[in-house]
Amino acid sequence: MADDQKLTTREADFGAWYNELVLKAELADYSAVRGCMVIRPNGYGIWERSQRALDDMFKETGVENAYFPLFIPESYLKKEAEHVEGFAPETAVVTIGGGKTLEEPLVVRPTSETIIYSSFAKWVQSYRDLPLLVNQWCNVVRWEMRTRLFLRTMEFLWQEGHTAHATYDEAEAKTRQMLGIYRRYMEEWGAMPVITGRKTESEKFAGALRTYACEAMMQDNKALQANTSHNLGQNFSKAFGLSFQTEAGASEFAWSTSWGLSTRVIGGLVMTHGDDIGLRIPPRLAPTELVIVPIYRAEEQRAQVLSVASGIRAELAKSATPIRVRVDARENMTPGAKYYDWELRGVPLRLELGPRDLEKGQGVLVRRDTREKRPVPLGELARTAADLLVTIQRDMFESARARREAHSLRGPITYDRFRQVMDGEGGFVYAGWCGSDACESAIKDETKATIRVLPDPEFRSPEAPRTCMKCGKDATAEAMWAKAY
Amino acid sequence: MADDQKLTTREADFGAWYNELVLKAELADYSAVRGCMVIRPNGYGIWERSQRALDDMFKETGVENAYFPLFIPESYLKKEAEHVEGFAPETAVVTIGGGKTLEEPLVVRPTSETIIYSSFAKWVQSYRDLPLLVNQWCNVVRWEMRTRLFLRTMEFLWQEGHTAHATYDEAEAKTRQMLGIYRRYMEEWGAMPVITGRKTESEKFAGALRTYACEAMMQDNKALQANTSHNLGQNFSKAFGLSFQTEAGASEFAWSTSWGLSTRVIGGLVMTHGDDIGLRIPPRLAPTELVIVPIYRAEEQRAQVLSVASGIRAELAKSATPIRVRVDARENMTPGAKYYDWELRGVPLRLELGPRDLEKGQGVLVRRDTREKRPVPLGELARTAADLLVTIQRDMFESARARREAHSLRGPITYDRFRQVMDGEGGFVYAGWCGSDACESAIKDETKATIRVLPDPEFRSPEAPRTCMKCGKDATAEAMWAKAY
Repeated sequence: MADDQKLTTREADFGAWYNELVLKAELADYSAVRGCMVIRPNGYGIWERSQRALDDMFKETGVENAYFPLFIPESYLKKEAEHVEGFAPETAVVTIGGGKTLEEPLVVRPTSETIIYSSFAKWVQSYRDLPLLVNQWCNVVRWEMRTRLFLRTMEFLWQEGHTAHATYDEAEAKTRQMLGIYRRYMEEWGAMPVITGRKTESEKFAGALRTYACEAMMQDNKALQANTSHNLGQNFSKAFGLSFQTEAGASEFAWSTSWGLSTRVIGGLVMTHGDDIGLRIPPRLAPTELVIVPIYRAEEQRAQVLSVASGIRAELAKSATPIRVRVDARENMTPGAKYYDWELRGVPLRLELGPRDLEKGQGVLVRRDTREKRPVPLGELARTAADLLVTIQRDMFESARARREAHSLRGPITYDRFRQVMDGEGGFVYAGWCGSDACESAIKDETKATIRVLPDPEFRSPEAPRTCMKCGKDATAEAMWAKAY
Repeated sequence: MADDQKLTTREADFGAWYNELVLKAELADYSAVRGCMVIRPNGYGIWERSQRALDDMFKETGVENAYFPLFIPESYLKKEAEHVEGFAPETAVVTIGGGKTLEEPLVVRPTSETIIYSSFAKWVQSYRDLPLLVNQWCNVVRWEMRTRLFLRTMEFLWQEGHTAHATYDEAEAKTRQMLGIYRRYMEEWGAMPVITGRKTESEKFAGALRTYACEAMMQDNKALQANTSHNLGQNFSKAFGLSFQTEAGASEFAWSTSWGLSTRVIGGLVMTHGDDIGLRIPPRLAPTELVIVPIYRAEEQRAQVLSVASGIRAELAKSATPIRVRVDARENMTPGAKYYDWELRGVPLRLELGPRDLEKGQGVLVRRDTREKRPVPLGELARTAADLLVTIQRDMFESARARREAHSLRGPITYDRFRQVMDGEGGFVYAGWCGSDACESAIKDETKATIRVLPDPEFRSPEAPRTCMKCGKDATAEAMWAKAY
């Protein structure tokens, strides 16, 4: 391997390491359109597995998929005052269609509340039509000036769920339920531990009553907001006339929610688990869980090893816990070059299989996360590999959680110390907050750190902070501060 | 059921019947944007099952999914001469982004050859990088003036596959292989028999060397082109510099293919299988295969019947052949109203379950396609329902094929007779063609019928037509003529 093929280390330049890794592992590529990226099969495979996991969980709660138009009449975006203020400056606008200038320009959806609630208003008459539980998987466009692969692109893929309910309580419960599903996906599939909680007024979604989010820590100690779940109250229902007749015969506006998770999460996966050698994909999201690298010198060895390898692939695909296996039969490439390639791409397990192994009836399994090697009798391979994949999944989660906790600060802290931390290595800082916009925005201006969430009870410190870190007044909440992507 | 709820009959007005059915069965709805539709959960569920079927077949052939940008720089569209001529007049164009006028307008993709082959050109250096086999599931926009739900909408969902190969033969084989997958999906999932074949020069894709398609007959005897598969030759490779080094060290342009199937197919499904009562969804594409309608008078009966119903649902979901079951527990609605509702929505099987049935240890199964009823002992339900679903799937296909054959004309035909047929009930007419544009376009002008395909060998008439139906000169091919959507 030539030195110029090596990745920049995380230590030397975290941002450069990230970009190089995304490109070299062929997760994504730049495109001919500024700010838009191409998601290559290696990256899209992770997205597909994420979609399947989330979609199954959504459907278990009664949510159904649908599809709403890409284009939104400009006038619709303006119907909810906060919403238009939040999104109008960053829209792409179609002004020409079929060669003619349009009478009313069409906005390419930055999010679909406006177009969706206008349909909901047609479909809902009575309380019997509620709840309405709909999700769509689609692309959205937000005109970003500074873009980064996966993390901030002009166009991205996501799902956006939209629900309408007869009561505030039901909408609030749905908002929390979907946040719980996101957390489960992040932690159990992505092996990315998260802090859940509520956003402050200044950080909430434009048009929402309240916003909840999952925040994960990256290896540069910055936070990544991976998804959000909004209780929209009656704001959009009022703007779009989404009312219903109650059981008692009165007319009331519905209570709605929306919740989204995007391809951004793939960037979070890279920054949580990648190392200086390459990606490490958690097994449950890995399109390939185990790659077999055949080793041979002579041509007759090649045929024998490949035949055993494809037998193993077939066996593992059909075992009690099916494993997604790929055989790397590329010619004109040394086994060492293949190891390098698959470590870069982050496949969780590698099986090295050579003539001497076959004589002994074994193969050598290598974990990508720890690079630990062990010979395994071929008869025990299916069970051992399945067990190891579970272990890797758990170990990756535990190691990310330990890392996060090692870079989290709790307990009384002075504002000077806080500034030192944020100027230095960063991390998650839990501190008292008086609840005022003034303190929040002063801290943001001075340190670039923001309140990521007001953490949910299980993430709060054992002893509630008494005073605001900034002004010293009584604290009204514990806030989790960090610099963020 | 009130009379005003009844559908217009197919006989009275096929077009009105179609629109009413799509709306009443809640497959789709009009949106706030002219020409764009909302695909509602009932319709989207059919699309999801179609996606799963196709995606699995694509992947078995080595195709991987990816995602390319929605926007295409205007200059890219112009790089392939025929392509821009075909698509430029029907594009939506973004001219404003982030509040500013763009230097180069961005076209919303009508299809993605141009943006995809510009990426392929970066990724391919040597014959070792070929074949490149990529597909994307996405939305596309074509500015249509006259739109119809599913059949012709400004925005639609589809998949577009794009492959690059080292030889012409490989590209041609891939083009045919994907057509075969489409045919399999249409016939084995959609129960829609198709005629496959090649398009004439005037009907082929803008920029293709040759285009193949699947054509299905609707119940008004018009043809629906459900999907196309194109051998693009080296046209796009030359336009975008997609060249590679051959094994011998020479530089050559790659040979590419593209192939697509869209949500239009759902319109075809409606027009193939629907009747005057409502939809009939082929079981393999039905989100719900069996609906249980509980029957009860008193409240204590209700609990008992519902408990048995949910037991059945659980049992059928776990049986050797899992069945997708829904229990209709809606209150304030008679069983009769529920039957009407599910017949409208086309669920293939209904199970009526009342207290008297429970006494006898049975339920009554009703087929949607034939409306045939039969009592079934509950102990045999899983097997009987599974068998019936297979039977319904096959019968729907056979019945659509018989219908098509009954409206197909083969053998010597005069042009006068042909005009009578096309002025009358229409159908598929197989006739000789001299191969000239003149005859093709004259017939189109005079009858509105077009050559749908030059059929593949298995669909050709036993005796090849000798002369052109129009000019009487020697026939160079047998053509299948029909009016089309």
